[in-house]
Amino acid sequence: MENQVTRVVFYVSDGTAITAEAIGHAVLSQYPVSLTQHILPFVETVERAREIRTRIDEIYARSGRRPLVFYSIVAAEVREQIVASQGFCQDILAALVSPLQEELGVPPQSTLRRTHGLTKHNFERYDARIAAIDYTLAHDDGMSLRQLDQAEAILLGVSRCGKTPTSLYLAMQFGIRAVNYPFIADDMDVLALPPGLRPHHDKLFGLTIDPERLAVIREERRSGSLYASLRQCRLEITEVEALYRRHGIPHLNTTNHSVEEISTKVIEMLGLERRMF
Amino acid sequence: MENQVTRVVFYVSDGTAITAEAIGHAVLSQYPVSLTQHILPFVETVERAREIRTRIDEIYARSGRRPLVFYSIVAAEVREQIVASQGFCQDILAALVSPLQEELGVPPQSTLRRTHGLTKHNFERYDARIAAIDYTLAHDDGMSLRQLDQAEAILLGVSRCGKTPTSLYLAMQFGIRAVNYPFIADDMDVLALPPGLRPHHDKLFGLTIDPERLAVIREERRSGSLYASLRQCRLEITEVEALYRRHGIPHLNTTNHSVEEISTKVIEMLGLERRMF
Repeated sequence: MENQVTRVVFYVSDGTAITAEAIGHAVLSQYPVSLTQHILPFVETVERAREIRTRIDEIYARSGRRPLVFYSIVAAEVREQIVASQGFCQDILAALVSPLQEELGVPPQSTLRRTHGLTKHNFERYDARIAAIDYTLAHDDGMSLRQLDQAEAILLGVSRCGKTPTSLYLAMQFGIRAVNYPFIADDMDVLALPPGLRPHHDKLFGLTIDPERLAVIREERRSGSLYASLRQCRLEITEVEALYRRHGIPHLNTTNHSVEEISTKVIEMLGLERRMF
Repeated sequence: MENQVTRVVFYVSDGTAITAEAIGHAVLSQYPVSLTQHILPFVETVERAREIRTRIDEIYARSGRRPLVFYSIVAAEVREQIVASQGFCQDILAALVSPLQEELGVPPQSTLRRTHGLTKHNFERYDARIAAIDYTLAHDDGMSLRQLDQAEAILLGVSRCGKTPTSLYLAMQFGIRAVNYPFIADDMDVLALPPGLRPHHDKLFGLTIDPERLAVIREERRSGSLYASLRQCRLEITEVEALYRRHGIPHLNTTNHSVEEISTKVIEMLGLERRMF
């Protein structure tokens, strides 16, 4: 990586810039270039856009290298300030919006519709998302096995295999009510599925993880403990994997998967509806 | 909306399809079209892609309308199956990737680098994200005011104004350690900033909300209660807003903002580093 060129990249948006950043990362990950990034959300006025234009132009003047600029701005007069800069400017949506006009037979609307906007018209939908987060928090770590009929997913697994982040992501990103239930060391002698979970077999999803990775994660938490020992981690993983197989519970090894990937797999394998907020 | 045409849209990805869906939504929100959507993540084999191609072609044959297809697939032989369908196919990244080649002076790499991928090389970064989620959960709803020196943001507000979802989103999406502290009805007679929070003034961020909206949200939770009454909601909001002003705490009315927008504002107004996972 020593010969890599460093470039400055700006993500400029009249909204949160979350989508702009996600797209920019995806695009730039295809090039061997090291980056310094500036994320500029809520750029809604000509004045603010002009300031950014000045920053871009200063970097160009100083370094001789054009900053890369990924932008998404609806108001033409604001957008024009950015486009007039010395940066290498790319509208993140334009290339996809224009071809659709012919296909759909209608022109795009110039009204501002933000990706992550909230208005009276979607309060109800939004409240469902918040309700899913509340439900999931109340059912974290086996705290409650009540109201399981309202659950859409019930995640099983040993301590620190990814249950809590995954269930929260399911709730936050997809509005899914997720319960998570931990198997603890004391369960391991005769590992069994709790009777309360059995009527909900079609919602059960098992997480597992490589014992070596689990030991590293647990070591961070309780260094030198039996809990963190490789021997204990191996025992627990062997037991829960056997239980998943015995009960025909779909399961996934999380070692090399992010919460986004695990959540997407849970939705797919349980056949859940994937909502988007 | 009665004259709207309904179109079928497919989001097809060799990863989670989260980015493909976000981009597709942003693009399609600019057209007055009603949609039936199919989200197809982890399309990694020619066989799977061929099945999808068949589904797309069947919809076209049946309806006479081309399904819209937003895709992101690295492997050429998998991608070709999708492109060969009768759908209106758009590569969500291609239009941005190509122009960069000339600007950066290097060709794009064909290696697979997933947006939400996890490998040994980013375990450490990933662990920091999980640690932020753990920290935030442990500091939800005023449960603990210990280790505040590790906090990056401390959200204040009355019950049900958006503190918990926002702090969890900050942790999940941006790896930010967020504490949230509730002001409760009993505090209102002499509303004061808890002494434990005072040394952390630069991390404090106040949330507020329209009393009318708050009453609706609380009514869902405890119908007919004093807690949910408009009178009580008005009183609490008046008090906390006065406290924010008295102490010079930056604050935001969350009524018309999503957790994404509130989180982005918190990061911006507290000057936090925005990480991306």
